[in-house]
Amino acid sequence: MENITVLVVDKLRNFIPEGWDVPKTLLKSMDYSLMAGGKRLRPLLVVAAAEALGASREAALPVACAVEMVHTYSLIHDDLPAMDDDDFRRGKPTNHKVFGEAMAILAGDGLLTHAFYSVVQASKEHDVPAANALAIIEDLSRYAGPAGMVGGQVADMEGEQGITGLNQLKYIHEHKTGDLIVFCLKAGGRIASASSEQLKALETYGRGLGLAFQIQDDILDLVGDESKLGKKTQSDVKQQKVTYPFFLGLDKSREEVDRLTHAAKKALSDGFIPYPGRLLEIADFLLRRDH
Amino acid sequence: MENITVLVVDKLRNFIPEGWDVPKTLLKSMDYSLMAGGKRLRPLLVVAAAEALGASREAALPVACAVEMVHTYSLIHDDLPAMDDDDFRRGKPTNHKVFGEAMAILAGDGLLTHAFYSVVQASKEHDVPAANALAIIEDLSRYAGPAGMVGGQVADMEGEQGITGLNQLKYIHEHKTGDLIVFCLKAGGRIASASSEQLKALETYGRGLGLAFQIQDDILDLVGDESKLGKKTQSDVKQQKVTYPFFLGLDKSREEVDRLTHAAKKALSDGFIPYPGRLLEIADFLLRRDH
Repeated sequence: MENITVLVVDKLRNFIPEGWDVPKTLLKSMDYSLMAGGKRLRPLLVVAAAEALGASREAALPVACAVEMVHTYSLIHDDLPAMDDDDFRRGKPTNHKVFGEAMAILAGDGLLTHAFYSVVQASKEHDVPAANALAIIEDLSRYAGPAGMVGGQVADMEGEQGITGLNQLKYIHEHKTGDLIVFCLKAGGRIASASSEQLKALETYGRGLGLAFQIQDDILDLVGDESKLGKKTQSDVKQQKVTYPFFLGLDKSREEVDRLTHAAKKALSDGFIPYPGRLLEIADFLLRRDH
Repeated sequence: MENITVLVVDKLRNFIPEGWDVPKTLLKSMDYSLMAGGKRLRPLLVVAAAEALGASREAALPVACAVEMVHTYSLIHDDLPAMDDDDFRRGKPTNHKVFGEAMAILAGDGLLTHAFYSVVQASKEHDVPAANALAIIEDLSRYAGPAGMVGGQVADMEGEQGITGLNQLKYIHEHKTGDLIVFCLKAGGRIASASSEQLKALETYGRGLGLAFQIQDDILDLVGDESKLGKKTQSDVKQQKVTYPFFLGLDKSREEVDRLTHAAKKALSDGFIPYPGRLLEIADFLLRRDH
């Protein structure tokens, strides 16, 4: 998996095409957050899904980078004073602490916009058919948009004024985190011209994995190791955010992560995915992670 | 032209597909700014360019709406306290004054993301080939992105700390306003499967028109009628923004608007555009406008 991450980071390092005239500070600000580390889970999922259906790693890279740009923009905007007002992310000062609020807003806008450019390159530089690239763009705008990630962020924000139950928490997780993860799997599938059964299987895997990942995040935020997480633990408790452990308790939450992970893995074997190895590995890796 | 505007506004009124689960406040916030009026110049240009090459108005509408979403998101973010800190736009309170800063940021993000969804519909609902839709998306992400509109906004922001000359002002206008206008023309062309000569002619027209439009804005901001503009005039003077009249004087600036408008119109007759009527009309209309 390290190899894929290296490829993604290398490509992200030169994400602006040669000859483009981008203001220096803007470029620095976008680059700062793109290079701030993180698990690179989303690009990994795009590549793993494409390879699970026999497509080449290279063809998947432009979309893998696109989803990391979208993820990064969402973190920059979420950290803003008007939103979560976070000073640190992954142990480093957040974008607006370094570049100021205005530049952070624009860096986020720039990354989101450029993500779509990157998807188009999958078709221009590799042999992904135009119709497939268009379907990936439709998915990206849907899963990252008002009914997807942006909607989830709004629900989360409004939830801070008092969440009523587990269903609302599920809604937040499904959209704020889950939708973009589902996108990764489907996009990988589309790069490999997946059948509709295969797309469905990848979607089911992604949906389960996404929720498991988020519950695990809730758990780690409660009991994790600050130095490994790169952020303060128990921050959700202090902010009085309701989480899975809040509703189910720690043990039941852990059981839920197990159950979801196994269901996700099972979807792959049920769904005619020829080379599921790396996707299974990722599911196990996320189950065992401590940060 | 009124007819086209009515069609665009009607389509924008229902810009979220049926059945999508978007948080109510987010929907209200996006809708508030989309429906806040304005000239609808950009959608008009998309439709006019498509019709100038014989494509149907209906096929151009999804892209016309997309560009209005992008324009609207840029206004919402520009008005934020961290950016221009404007309380009024088109005579109405700005988005963040009504919905708060966090929601305004997310409404902008939602509109930008959804614009790409809307472009895809040009191919799904009309007979725009997938490859053309993909080229439109590539253009949109380029002209609205870090080397386009977002870059122009950064340059404008940095320019407030002291612009050195007319060339830098040209750079700001070219990217902050001009690029998205050029996009409109090329997108209209692509909807009609324009030849490369025709695309070039539309681009030249758009580039000239865009700069003329912006210089005219500078002029109106200095001498315009507040009730017609819906914002305070002389605001640039108060904010010590340098403008075309600042460098060239009022008379020379007006001459430049004339010259650019005529050159834009000429590009159409030089460029084998079969039905340029409405594009010529728009150029004359902009030349004569008082708000």
